Amino acid sequence: MITLNETHDPALRSWVASANARDCDFPIQNLPFAVFRRRGGGEAFRGGVAIGDQILDMAAAAATGVFSGEAEDAASAAGQDKLNALMALGEPAWRALRLSLSRALREGAAEQSRLQSCLVPQAEAEYDVPARIGDYTDFYTSVHHATNIGKQFRPDNPLLPNYKWVPIGYHGRASSIVVSGHAFRRPSGQTMPPGADKPGFGPSKRLDIELELGIFIGRGNALGEAVPIGEAESHVFGICLLNDWSARDIQGWEYQPLGPFLSKNFATTVSPWIVALEALAPYRLPFSRAAGDPQPLPYLDSEQNRAAGAFDIELEVGLRTAAMQQAGQREASICRTNYRHAYWTVAQMVAHHTVNGCNLQAGDLFGSGTLSGPTLDQAGALVELTAGGKTPLQLPNGETRAFLEDGDSVVLRAWCEKPGASRIGFGECWGTVLPARA
Amino acid sequence: MITLNETHDPALRSWVASANARDCDFPIQNLPFAVFRRRGGGEAFRGGVAIGDQILDMAAAAATGVFSGEAEDAASAAGQDKLNALMALGEPAWRALRLSLSRALREGAAEQSRLQSCLVPQAEAEYDVPARIGDYTDFYTSVHHATNIGKQFRPDNPLLPNYKWVPIGYHGRASSIVVSGHAFRRPSGQTMPPGADKPGFGPSKRLDIELELGIFIGRGNALGEAVPIGEAESHVFGICLLNDWSARDIQGWEYQPLGPFLSKNFATTVSPWIVALEALAPYRLPFSRAAGDPQPLPYLDSEQNRAAGAFDIELEVGLRTAAMQQAGQREASICRTNYRHAYWTVAQMVAHHTVNGCNLQAGDLFGSGTLSGPTLDQAGALVELTAGGKTPLQLPNGETRAFLEDGDSVVLRAWCEKPGASRIGFGECWGTVLPARA
Repeated sequence: MITLNETHDPALRSWVASANARDCDFPIQNLPFAVFRRRGGGEAFRGGVAIGDQILDMAAAAATGVFSGEAEDAASAAGQDKLNALMALGEPAWRALRLSLSRALREGAAEQSRLQSCLVPQAEAEYDVPARIGDYTDFYTSVHHATNIGKQFRPDNPLLPNYKWVPIGYHGRASSIVVSGHAFRRPSGQTMPPGADKPGFGPSKRLDIELELGIFIGRGNALGEAVPIGEAESHVFGICLLNDWSARDIQGWEYQPLGPFLSKNFATTVSPWIVALEALAPYRLPFSRAAGDPQPLPYLDSEQNRAAGAFDIELEVGLRTAAMQQAGQREASICRTNYRHAYWTVAQMVAHHTVNGCNLQAGDLFGSGTLSGPTLDQAGALVELTAGGKTPLQLPNGETRAFLEDGDSVVLRAWCEKPGASRIGFGECWGTVLPARA
Repeated sequence: MITLNETHDPALRSWVASANARDCDFPIQNLPFAVFRRRGGGEAFRGGVAIGDQILDMAAAAATGVFSGEAEDAASAAGQDKLNALMALGEPAWRALRLSLSRALREGAAEQSRLQSCLVPQAEAEYDVPARIGDYTDFYTSVHHATNIGKQFRPDNPLLPNYKWVPIGYHGRASSIVVSGHAFRRPSGQTMPPGADKPGFGPSKRLDIELELGIFIGRGNALGEAVPIGEAESHVFGICLLNDWSARDIQGWEYQPLGPFLSKNFATTVSPWIVALEALAPYRLPFSRAAGDPQPLPYLDSEQNRAAGAFDIELEVGLRTAAMQQAGQREASICRTNYRHAYWTVAQMVAHHTVNGCNLQAGDLFGSGTLSGPTLDQAGALVELTAGGKTPLQLPNGETRAFLEDGDSVVLRAWCEKPGASRIGFGECWGTVLPARA
């Protein structure tokens, strides 16, 4: 059951004044987690909670003694250098900590005097990947993305017959997941250019983005035991932004028959901030199938999933070229869409992943797959936005882009907004393309 | 350069008498590593080295002070509860430890008096997965397996055009890797039976094995830096047995377009013992391409790979049904083949995996892919041995098997043997199928 409680009250204000601005990503109703430290000082990474333009240092906050009971255990776990221990505690602990944080950060809270000194400005912070990610699984939950991509390979039959029955997913690479702000080298690899009779080797010429959300698993399940869909969301800690950088030319040549490999595993970028599922409660939406689409099999169906399985999360991709950066220009928006268009829900991903007994562990990460919406300007990858490179994007400064060039930076953003509820933001997820290794 | 040294001398004998038997898997020339403890006593797991029918407890051995210099550091790392620290030390440390162990375990060694009390009989031991496996990658290096499987899907065009150019691999699931002896539940999942118009759900009816070798990575590489093929083997710690259990009916329905997922990630079994690459030096073979096959691209080609990139490792699969076990019968051999038939080498796997800058870490595991040989009785999976289930195996006790049934146990074995060199064995890799979860 998705229920609202006092932590969602849009009238709440924080004694951290910046949290009360209307367009703030991190009001007191959000309270997302990251792992951070002050830049350049050689400090240890530890968990923190975003509030306005500040970070509440959870290691310091836990030491003040303002938390008690279940929230105290959770606060202590949240102060570690990775969030796995907090994730493993499970939903009651996360809820208890959220309630305590909400009360302690409110205007007039007695805890202000003790917590004031635990704040670190976000402007002075750097971040780490927030969890030790044991396994990373990337799904394919946008039917629009699957159809757009399928059209480029199979114009007459874009969607494979399993798509509307199976929440398609595959295993990704955990070691090369980096946090927002990381620059990475353009990958080299084998490609088979059109018309060639043998493959070539060199830097990818079709480097792309994939606009995704990342889902961090909290409580795991034992090997051999499935998680029923009705319990699935209690295993989910929260949601972040994820850019699944993809080398389309390498992918096209390597992916048959076992799926993408070197075309994806050179880098995957996540945002520092993980928004708890509970913070998103005001933005849940019913989930249903369009007329003509099959109903989900029973293991992928539940009353709660139908009532509120989906999320109303706005998504945007910005591109800033080296020339734009030099000229002091902001990034150009190249895509705007919403997570509500996904064909499979988070709960269905968890239920499907475990139905064969596969064990999830605290800190595991799912990617949603590229979250393209129903129209082409809502596509979350350049290969869709530019029709496979044939219709390059026109950027405001006169440049064009079919695929990413060296020096390009990409930012993903996500937020929830509606009348009668507080804005819930996800912050930013940046990455920059460096030239290929010589 | 593959060179032999005093540790490979076939004349060496150990003061552990069982190691000197002709058919022993673990003579003094082998010295493989595992993580073990005495069964049932609540002891901590720690690293050990096989010698004859005994295990040299490396935590205890390191504490005796018989090792010095680089070997001392390596021995201490080998005594931990996972072998990652030993793996991360790199080739010079592994070689130093191997040399010290070889000298200390030889007949007449002064160390006998101190090491004698560090022996634990293998008959009293249980094992753990030997490393924290950060990422698991499964390759597809047998052209015979790829052709046999391809024929079942595409009779006229079994081998995809990329196969002879790209060492095909995909990411597998690390969390569900278990050690030999683990029983696992038959997975349930979606399948599309032939002729059906919608998928069904239930326990897999086509549960299969895959005979593979596992390759443990030692020293890693930094994100963004490739490992040149000439240095690739210095990043490899050693080789074990690996059974990549596969649900063929789930696989057939789910695998397009992103590869196998729930059909594989319910369980993967590895042998406890990891044979160091150095122990296999006498069994290296030249690697070459058959006439008509393309030469590997430069990043997959090196003089050493051509001179000795392949391995002469005999492989065998045994099947013991519940009825055979009840009757006290041994397993029946259902496949016998050799790793020499692989199309891509270990060095090529490492070079390919990292050519895009993907970072490997100590403890990462590669699967070789199913090691089917050129003839059908050398096939490493039931789906090949039984032509997709159409020609069931006839077992010695009158039973037949198209795919695995509940209660079936499967054992993989591997060994090297030739005149003028000592036998090098890999031990056994067992797994048993339990009924599906109700």
